[in-house]
Amino acid sequence: MKAAVWYGRRDIRVEEFPDPPPPGENEVKIKVSWCGICGTDLEEYLYGPLYIPVDEPNPLTGRKAPMILGHEFVGTVVKVGPGVTGFKVGDVVTPDTLIHCGECYWCKRHQVHHCENLAILGLMTDGGFAEYVNAPTYMCFHLPAGVSPEVAVLAEPASVAVRANRLARTSFGDSVAVIGAGTIGLLCLQTAFLSGASRVYVLEVDSSRREVASQMGATKVFDPLAVDPVEAIKEHTGGRGVDVVLEAGGNAKTIAMAPKLACKRGRVVLLTLHNEPVPINFFPLVCDEIELIGSFSHIYDEDFAAAVTLLGDGRINAEPLITGRIGLDDIVEKGLEELIANKAENLKILVSPEDANLG
Amino acid sequence: MKAAVWYGRRDIRVEEFPDPPPPGENEVKIKVSWCGICGTDLEEYLYGPLYIPVDEPNPLTGRKAPMILGHEFVGTVVKVGPGVTGFKVGDVVTPDTLIHCGECYWCKRHQVHHCENLAILGLMTDGGFAEYVNAPTYMCFHLPAGVSPEVAVLAEPASVAVRANRLARTSFGDSVAVIGAGTIGLLCLQTAFLSGASRVYVLEVDSSRREVASQMGATKVFDPLAVDPVEAIKEHTGGRGVDVVLEAGGNAKTIAMAPKLACKRGRVVLLTLHNEPVPINFFPLVCDEIELIGSFSHIYDEDFAAAVTLLGDGRINAEPLITGRIGLDDIVEKGLEELIANKAENLKILVSPEDANLG
Repeated sequence: MKAAVWYGRRDIRVEEFPDPPPPGENEVKIKVSWCGICGTDLEEYLYGPLYIPVDEPNPLTGRKAPMILGHEFVGTVVKVGPGVTGFKVGDVVTPDTLIHCGECYWCKRHQVHHCENLAILGLMTDGGFAEYVNAPTYMCFHLPAGVSPEVAVLAEPASVAVRANRLARTSFGDSVAVIGAGTIGLLCLQTAFLSGASRVYVLEVDSSRREVASQMGATKVFDPLAVDPVEAIKEHTGGRGVDVVLEAGGNAKTIAMAPKLACKRGRVVLLTLHNEPVPINFFPLVCDEIELIGSFSHIYDEDFAAAVTLLGDGRINAEPLITGRIGLDDIVEKGLEELIANKAENLKILVSPEDANLG
Repeated sequence: MKAAVWYGRRDIRVEEFPDPPPPGENEVKIKVSWCGICGTDLEEYLYGPLYIPVDEPNPLTGRKAPMILGHEFVGTVVKVGPGVTGFKVGDVVTPDTLIHCGECYWCKRHQVHHCENLAILGLMTDGGFAEYVNAPTYMCFHLPAGVSPEVAVLAEPASVAVRANRLARTSFGDSVAVIGAGTIGLLCLQTAFLSGASRVYVLEVDSSRREVASQMGATKVFDPLAVDPVEAIKEHTGGRGVDVVLEAGGNAKTIAMAPKLACKRGRVVLLTLHNEPVPINFFPLVCDEIELIGSFSHIYDEDFAAAVTLLGDGRINAEPLITGRIGLDDIVEKGLEELIANKAENLKILVSPEDANLG
């Protein structure tokens, strides 16, 4: 089959790759329709290996590079392995891509996304940038009737935003600030309103992204390079700050800014993986009883399931987030390199191994 | 009357001071039995003015230095002002010392400890290091039958610990680490057990304080200078870390250490006011979905009321925390200077303006 295979930093090759073996016990073989390029894929391309095992095979999957990336995908079941129930050939599914060991402290408490041996399909074993992929059925979700596979690809980033609002305890009537209007930030904006927020402010340096945020209903958008973001938020909240801050900017400056936007008793959710120390003066955070809450993406079943439901009935509007549809052959030039060259203009680029999908 | 008056840094004078005026509307005049020396009092003595108004009078109280300190006290009502209900001459009371404006956003939402104009009796107006003090009845709590005034003085620091465990959501069966075994840390230890914690580990550099923690039932005490605290906690928690960390150490090192002791989904409550940036790498906090929660002491009614109840029926054992009982005349030499010279040996020193109390 054809696949996009990661060999090393800035070395992803579209080439012939062995088909996955016949699906094993409780596995299905999926023919991929669409697979989204995630920020993590881009990071593996630019700075990897970050999560991809290179020297030793991953203990759960037994796989190491070269590796097929892709962990946001939708496809059709074409073969079922022994023991499979609940899935049949022809079902359209999206997997949450979490591989858990089932044996550790967290797995036994049904918090599989904290599995001590956690592996991701598309990073620690072969993923969705290919014609076919095998997946265990425990990670597969049926698409609701009427939702297109392209929209459903957004289930994974949408579940990140669902989870962030859950951990923030975003409540009816709350004011919210979202830092960064990339795919995750824009989904945070939508899910904050769906959580009952009365006002959602968006801080974003890029004007085209601010425009998308406005179109999606942001109460007000700010360019943090043009105005003092703390002053701007205070001005719109009676001097107090917002109830909830969702930090999807992902750099030292935005992380340090986040708690300053919150009101007393405010909840600040950090969604991004910034791997450098950020100096924080906790004095005002203690005085104002602010909470800094880490949110590690998407992998709770209920978040992913909620995201699929919300995309399915259109409450999450994913269409404006899809800024590109390309074939697998073009993943490097029109996908990864395009995201590097024109970061601001692009949100989610979808890749399809099926020529028929590209019209 | 006799009072200990703050004039400036390292300048507290025991001298004659005008009696408080007759108590106003809804105020009582209290004859002080005992008043505890708080860390804040010590900081005002060493590094002040921190909270004490010096140039402009406090807008709520109209007072500025020279000022009588003392915000942890118990006394007897000797006069009631107009309109007072629920209190009569002879009642033994302890005030939570919070003065709120009643007009701001937070006061109107009954979160008076977040009052935008918050003032503390004993810092922004005259407090309990005196023979008499006036206090509004809204801040006064009756002592439960049978509790001694000396023990009840601990209501204020105990409510700090009650609040920390509430914000940490310390739950039945949780494992807890307390950093620092001063008065607040030792009360955190006790209230963690009262919250249902199964194990409470205490990290403290001073051996005599570790000894007190052990006597109070700490599951295990560690000297963070002798062992690697992160390794020690991991070793006792199956490699995972504790569910709850209560940070009462109050320096950059202990604050930076705190999240490293927590397990996935762990709650880290910061109780101290350290006014310098602390570099924190949030990457592992996001991956493990750890929460950093600021806890600003004691001033919610329900925390103070809970502390009075728990001290009243002996569930909080305050006696071992009282390491000194002195007269008001000795507050500088045997109180503040003693706390500076022999920090580790001392926990709470109580001051009484009544010679009869000193036996």
